[in-house]
Amino acid sequence: MYIPPVPRIGIFDSGFGGLTVERAILSALPSIDTVYLGDTARLPYGTKSAATVTQYALKNARLLARHGIDLLVVACNTASAVALPALRAELAVPVLGVVEPGALVAARATRTGRIGIIGTEGTVASGAYQEAIQRARPDAQVVARACPLFVPLVEEGWVDEKDEVVRGVVRRYLSPFRGDGVDTLVLGCTHYPLLKAAIGAELAGVKLVDSAEAIAQEVSARFPLAPAPPGENLFLVTDSPEKFLAVARLFLGRSVERALHVDV
Amino acid sequence: MYIPPVPRIGIFDSGFGGLTVERAILSALPSIDTVYLGDTARLPYGTKSAATVTQYALKNARLLARHGIDLLVVACNTASAVALPALRAELAVPVLGVVEPGALVAARATRTGRIGIIGTEGTVASGAYQEAIQRARPDAQVVARACPLFVPLVEEGWVDEKDEVVRGVVRRYLSPFRGDGVDTLVLGCTHYPLLKAAIGAELAGVKLVDSAEAIAQEVSARFPLAPAPPGENLFLVTDSPEKFLAVARLFLGRSVERALHVDV
Repeated sequence: MYIPPVPRIGIFDSGFGGLTVERAILSALPSIDTVYLGDTARLPYGTKSAATVTQYALKNARLLARHGIDLLVVACNTASAVALPALRAELAVPVLGVVEPGALVAARATRTGRIGIIGTEGTVASGAYQEAIQRARPDAQVVARACPLFVPLVEEGWVDEKDEVVRGVVRRYLSPFRGDGVDTLVLGCTHYPLLKAAIGAELAGVKLVDSAEAIAQEVSARFPLAPAPPGENLFLVTDSPEKFLAVARLFLGRSVERALHVDV
Repeated sequence: MYIPPVPRIGIFDSGFGGLTVERAILSALPSIDTVYLGDTARLPYGTKSAATVTQYALKNARLLARHGIDLLVVACNTASAVALPALRAELAVPVLGVVEPGALVAARATRTGRIGIIGTEGTVASGAYQEAIQRARPDAQVVARACPLFVPLVEEGWVDEKDEVVRGVVRRYLSPFRGDGVDTLVLGCTHYPLLKAAIGAELAGVKLVDSAEAIAQEVSARFPLAPAPPGENLFLVTDSPEKFLAVARLFLGRSVERALHVDV
């Protein structure tokens, strides 16, 4: 009996946040092989220019391409927003970003047609979510706001919705959305799902769209795998592995025993 | 009459914060020539490993050395804390960091001998301030704490001591110092002087030491310049110049008209 090889997907992010995407993909496709690259030596991407983020994305993709991947997932929203054309022009395998799947879920979920987007400065400035939503639903009204403090808050572990600092920061960024009357909000950064409880408390009744779950559905539709043993999951980082291993559990939901240092 | 050439100093930092050091140096020595390099494509340094920060510091220093500098000032506390030996081993010109001058000022300022240090994770983990203070004053008791949210707060422009989010973050990090009974606190990161009012309100009566002012005194002692017209100040950045130009005023106290993009 011929046993087809297990597909292998490459996933990169500026650091740890993309592990929420890896987690969602492994939850949908436990037997797939993954190679995850966290560009921890150069994070964050969200405050940097499109030109610099594109250059970093290409270097990450070249390294992953050398691992024989069948598909590249750009788990970082900022890189998905600015670097997909350059990545698709260079790579021989399909390239999926998190922006398009998240935008489609939001366009289907809204009833009022008013959709909010939150993300890094780079993601919001690119207009990528806004354009993807307009393509799917031309009558949608989209309001996008950057929330630069959310990533450092999550990386400090300050995510409890009862924490007064967390509540104060969330309120300052999100209260304007109440005046906009949005009924759907896209969490357009891989760190933001960890603040879901605090965001939900501030914007009660608003549907929150997690791009990680949206892209996991798209990946699993491409690889209809029969049940099989868990695949191999390799983790690569550009800074030292220690901090990555220390915080991986927060994002991946389980601990990672080993990560390899690479130069890209 | 022989007119000696104006000395030129190179200054680097992970990004914008080192402009507070440039500002203090130019205030003491207005006629000196400076070449400032902000490694904005790879900031921040404070959360990254000593090995990665040292590698970045060497690349920055090599670029500045090609500009014919007479002295290198490492304006970044994290790089000063971990990379000085590597920089001194390679460079032909003297290399000054901000840690030693700040530590000496604190060792002289304290009456009780109890000194607090705040800085990035990298600076605190290195133990560099703690060691420098112990060398100057072996009986000192030093307590160091990392404050990872301070840099993003400053970069977001949230620095007002009456702002409840600013007060909440400052209180969470600094209130333990009250129990330690420190009478002197070193602001061991170039961003922190912008939070001086909020820090002073939380720790009333504690003397705050600004490493930028401390190193400016050391640099001006090396170059006893006669009054002369203002020197030339060149600004180089590794990410796009736009954001640098937009926030430079906040740190430098005056606007910068031009910054050049460089690859290091």
